[in-house]
Amino acid sequence: MEDAKGKLLESINNPDDLKKIPVDQLEDVCQELRDYIIDVVSTNPGHFGASLGVIELTVALHYVYNTPYDQLVWDVGHQAYGHKILTGRRDQFDTNRKYKGLSGFPKRSESEYDAFGVGHSSTSISAALGMAIASRIKGEKERKVVAVIGDGAMTGGMAFEALNNAGGENADILVILNDNNMAIDPSVGGLNKYLLNISKSDTYNRMKHDVWEGLGKLDGFGKKARKFIQKNQHALKNMILKENNLFEAFNFRYFGPIDGHDVRYLTNALNDLKDIPGPKLLHVITQKGKGFKQAEIHQTKWHAPGIFDKETGEIYKCDCKIDQAPKFQNVFGDTLVELAEKNEKIVGITPAMPTGCSMNKMIEQMPGRAFDVGIAEQHAVTFSAGLAAQGMVPFCNIYSTFMQRAYDQVIHDVAIQKLPVIFCLDRGGLVGEDGPTHHGVFDIAYMRSVPNMIVSAPMDEIELRNLMYTAQLDEINQPFSIRYPRGCGITTDWQKEFEKIEIGKGRKLNDGSDIALLSIGKTGIFAQRAVKLLASNDISAAHYDMRFVKPLDTEMLTEIMENFDQIVTIEDGSIQGGFGSAILEFMAENGFTNKIKILGIPDQFIEHGTPEELYRECGIDTQGIVITAKQLVGKTKIV
Amino acid sequence: MEDAKGKLLESINNPDDLKKIPVDQLEDVCQELRDYIIDVVSTNPGHFGASLGVIELTVALHYVYNTPYDQLVWDVGHQAYGHKILTGRRDQFDTNRKYKGLSGFPKRSESEYDAFGVGHSSTSISAALGMAIASRIKGEKERKVVAVIGDGAMTGGMAFEALNNAGGENADILVILNDNNMAIDPSVGGLNKYLLNISKSDTYNRMKHDVWEGLGKLDGFGKKARKFIQKNQHALKNMILKENNLFEAFNFRYFGPIDGHDVRYLTNALNDLKDIPGPKLLHVITQKGKGFKQAEIHQTKWHAPGIFDKETGEIYKCDCKIDQAPKFQNVFGDTLVELAEKNEKIVGITPAMPTGCSMNKMIEQMPGRAFDVGIAEQHAVTFSAGLAAQGMVPFCNIYSTFMQRAYDQVIHDVAIQKLPVIFCLDRGGLVGEDGPTHHGVFDIAYMRSVPNMIVSAPMDEIELRNLMYTAQLDEINQPFSIRYPRGCGITTDWQKEFEKIEIGKGRKLNDGSDIALLSIGKTGIFAQRAVKLLASNDISAAHYDMRFVKPLDTEMLTEIMENFDQIVTIEDGSIQGGFGSAILEFMAENGFTNKIKILGIPDQFIEHGTPEELYRECGIDTQGIVITAKQLVGKTKIV
Repeated sequence: MEDAKGKLLESINNPDDLKKIPVDQLEDVCQELRDYIIDVVSTNPGHFGASLGVIELTVALHYVYNTPYDQLVWDVGHQAYGHKILTGRRDQFDTNRKYKGLSGFPKRSESEYDAFGVGHSSTSISAALGMAIASRIKGEKERKVVAVIGDGAMTGGMAFEALNNAGGENADILVILNDNNMAIDPSVGGLNKYLLNISKSDTYNRMKHDVWEGLGKLDGFGKKARKFIQKNQHALKNMILKENNLFEAFNFRYFGPIDGHDVRYLTNALNDLKDIPGPKLLHVITQKGKGFKQAEIHQTKWHAPGIFDKETGEIYKCDCKIDQAPKFQNVFGDTLVELAEKNEKIVGITPAMPTGCSMNKMIEQMPGRAFDVGIAEQHAVTFSAGLAAQGMVPFCNIYSTFMQRAYDQVIHDVAIQKLPVIFCLDRGGLVGEDGPTHHGVFDIAYMRSVPNMIVSAPMDEIELRNLMYTAQLDEINQPFSIRYPRGCGITTDWQKEFEKIEIGKGRKLNDGSDIALLSIGKTGIFAQRAVKLLASNDISAAHYDMRFVKPLDTEMLTEIMENFDQIVTIEDGSIQGGFGSAILEFMAENGFTNKIKILGIPDQFIEHGTPEELYRECGIDTQGIVITAKQLVGKTKIV
Repeated sequence: MEDAKGKLLESINNPDDLKKIPVDQLEDVCQELRDYIIDVVSTNPGHFGASLGVIELTVALHYVYNTPYDQLVWDVGHQAYGHKILTGRRDQFDTNRKYKGLSGFPKRSESEYDAFGVGHSSTSISAALGMAIASRIKGEKERKVVAVIGDGAMTGGMAFEALNNAGGENADILVILNDNNMAIDPSVGGLNKYLLNISKSDTYNRMKHDVWEGLGKLDGFGKKARKFIQKNQHALKNMILKENNLFEAFNFRYFGPIDGHDVRYLTNALNDLKDIPGPKLLHVITQKGKGFKQAEIHQTKWHAPGIFDKETGEIYKCDCKIDQAPKFQNVFGDTLVELAEKNEKIVGITPAMPTGCSMNKMIEQMPGRAFDVGIAEQHAVTFSAGLAAQGMVPFCNIYSTFMQRAYDQVIHDVAIQKLPVIFCLDRGGLVGEDGPTHHGVFDIAYMRSVPNMIVSAPMDEIELRNLMYTAQLDEINQPFSIRYPRGCGITTDWQKEFEKIEIGKGRKLNDGSDIALLSIGKTGIFAQRAVKLLASNDISAAHYDMRFVKPLDTEMLTEIMENFDQIVTIEDGSIQGGFGSAILEFMAENGFTNKIKILGIPDQFIEHGTPEELYRECGIDTQGIVITAKQLVGKTKIV
């Protein structure tokens, strides 16, 4: 059979090609698609388990629906590799997540089949409803809209806001609940228990073995079944559908649960649901990592495993540099446990990122004091505020990009009340391959506008540790934000004794006379290297690691302003309103008119690539700093 | 009976006093409390209908629970007037919402009985859960936590995030669903229909008339009932509780619905629920405005009616100034309809503020094209993005302070995809009596960081009209933000022909030579007055209404920088990262070193008061501008 391998997939350049394949060969298409993804992702790292889990669903959707006229919205989108491969991007798939290559997520500018760009969770029902209502207004009666959302994403509040609105509007929309019992980590909360109850219930089994088979496998939810539903709706619902279901409370018609790995069942079910008007939800049970044994077993590890051996399932470790500096997230995770052992008021909160942010360590060691609250950033922040109101000291860890979801709660529930919630913003700055939906470049700007908020960013692991230590001290007792980057730091010997960092105090790392470099956070590392390169070009650059965006070290800044004509500020965040902007406000307030150049993320969305490629693009890496500094001091020879 | 009027209420200085009153006099307490609120609010305007609706619930809660040790969290909080009066603030209640007086919302710094500060919707379950978990960690087994949330607030996504987490944690928490079928406007969506079905169902009536009475009215949910529940839980649930209820899906035990205006029922029910462990939801049916006829009938109008005659129910109109300039919101509402009549791609979206933002006009006249999506800011934005993705031009109107809830969706779903959603941010700036939870002071800063976003603010009604007109033109086709203030403008003759405003172009309103005033939005009105006052002091001030924060009018700014040594920027938004900060960035980028003073909201939360009092406090009113300008040009005599 070796010579037939990939033959079907090779013939599919778009969903029209797929539709030409007989239904009884769809299982083969799925197998080829699965093999192709395993093949490419094993050498070109990306998300893995999620796409394997929806192979059959992806094939069935494009087989049944008239895409791209019909609108298919993937929630989060890291499960859309099969979708990309089937919609004209098979041959580019090896550029997935690479600089200038395919995006790892659906993206409107990439393909007309990508109806809506995604990356963050729980947006699909809202977007699909907007499309459905647009079709209603425009009178496009034949156009269908489908949202595919995971059970993890379903815990995000806006999914319920959208269900409520869709139910009220009685919109023609199909929501497919892709229930694999997982977010990146296992799903949590009341909803998860509820869905498990449904999928493990007698109803499900009865449905699967008796009713479904009885209606004829080939026919599935087909014409006969539909007529039966229409005539005997209530009776059938009692057999194969759950009565008084959660989703029915929102005025959705609930169908399922059905097996998400039986592609023929799926095509039959979808074919029939397609023509039923109103809001519908199809509950599909899938397995994350389906078809790759290790990924089926270790689902969190195989969410995005990096490079691996597709035969043995060995994951090649290449996370950190040779010098074995730790990831910032591990410094967070280990330090949190250390601090919590000493300070019993400390609690940990993560919205569905225990592994990603390394809070899993505290959750394992202190299960009553650390909480995965689900994909629920808004709730995570106000829950933390409630804990703080009762005397606890919460470390609330949310990726910078996801903290955008909880900005109101940061202001309204934490800062106005000056509650001592410590926000740890992981993945601050340019995150690399996940691209514009995931870069954490706005937090410096949006956090520093918030009164009562201390805004800090460590340059290295030791500063992260010490900022965490400082933030939880009784004497601080106010909102405290610590942002740090994705990936590894620079310090192998980081587990030192805790030292308090004075609030609002920076540190001078290099003396100099020609120019002052003022950095915040990780960019200090680039500035350190730039200082050396500049020195070899006879430019004497001072370097200050400011550590705090708010309050600013006004004493240090005054000294800098009095001693340097030329100043460069460096940040891996938005120039608009960011760290450099704060320095400008200080200068205006105090009448300083030094020449200053702000390096940071320009006013555009930065695409995906390696962090190094993106730093370079923005001119905030070592080379960028050197070039800028040389321009400012009037020396133009190239390093 | 005249001499007995208010006697009971006068004796209640705290909940301990309330507890001394025999249960059969609680109805009298409720009547006195209701009269007191009507009395005070009729002359001292505030929220009205909501507090009248929860009088009995408020009395019952403080009668049964051991507040403030037990924690009572009011969602939104505008219904907490009764709570404030019963918890030591009766005699200060006439300072409600006045400068330096009581806050119109619960506030931790105001009273130990205010367990959690509120203002925005849907936060109570999250906060209460945090408190309940804190008690669990601290081993405070007797401490109870109650969240009171309206059916409108229940549509906010974070309420579901919190239900999901509470159900998963199996936390000891009571959620009281205060179901009055209203937000400020009537509640909308699938959930609303579901709750109506429950409350109108046979189950409810059977419960009320048979089971409940049968168990003995005085005993209510009392000991006997409890034993019965414990022994025959399933059977009783089938009688008086809904099986397979929405909330049960989240692992909450559902009780109700019960009559929220029978204070003795309520005390009995609460007394019993108090000792049942785990997550519980009590569904209480209330009527907004209960006990004041006009408020019962016209619930939206009487949400916050202003001053009124408590005998006749006449509302005294004092909304706008003598010159009859319209409210900005009405300019929005009328203009939207005008534009939508000409441009069939226009749709309107509001998250539960149709009356507040005046989109009710479009909803009435074009019901298929304008949507109240419920208290659901996140969904509102992504729903708009979905509409835009299919070629519509959505006007998404969200108060500035509530847009903080949808910041991620603005970035992730609209701006990254450069979809032409037009954000109309009503209530930008200092809103006055609603105070720090409602001031819209961060939007300039958080919007201008977002790539692809046009950020504008009209100075007057005509500019608002023309910005709206401009934003919907085909040639624009990108995200466009227009922020404008609460209250009235200055122009009576505003309904002029539409004129396109060139993107990124300001306008010079006054020539001058000593100093340049650069204003954005409404502060231009103050600057106009300041120019005149300064002229009478021999200071020649130029005034530029910049109109756009992004893109900036670089041509005009260059001219200003070249012609003026002294510059003042004025905005009714956060100084940190705001409009002035954008000007500073322009100056740094272009090497200008003029002296510049930024007037705006300082780095603190501004309390409540009249807008005029608050503008004065921040130094951004006419007087503030004059003083600053005089200081800068070295003339210190007082105007």
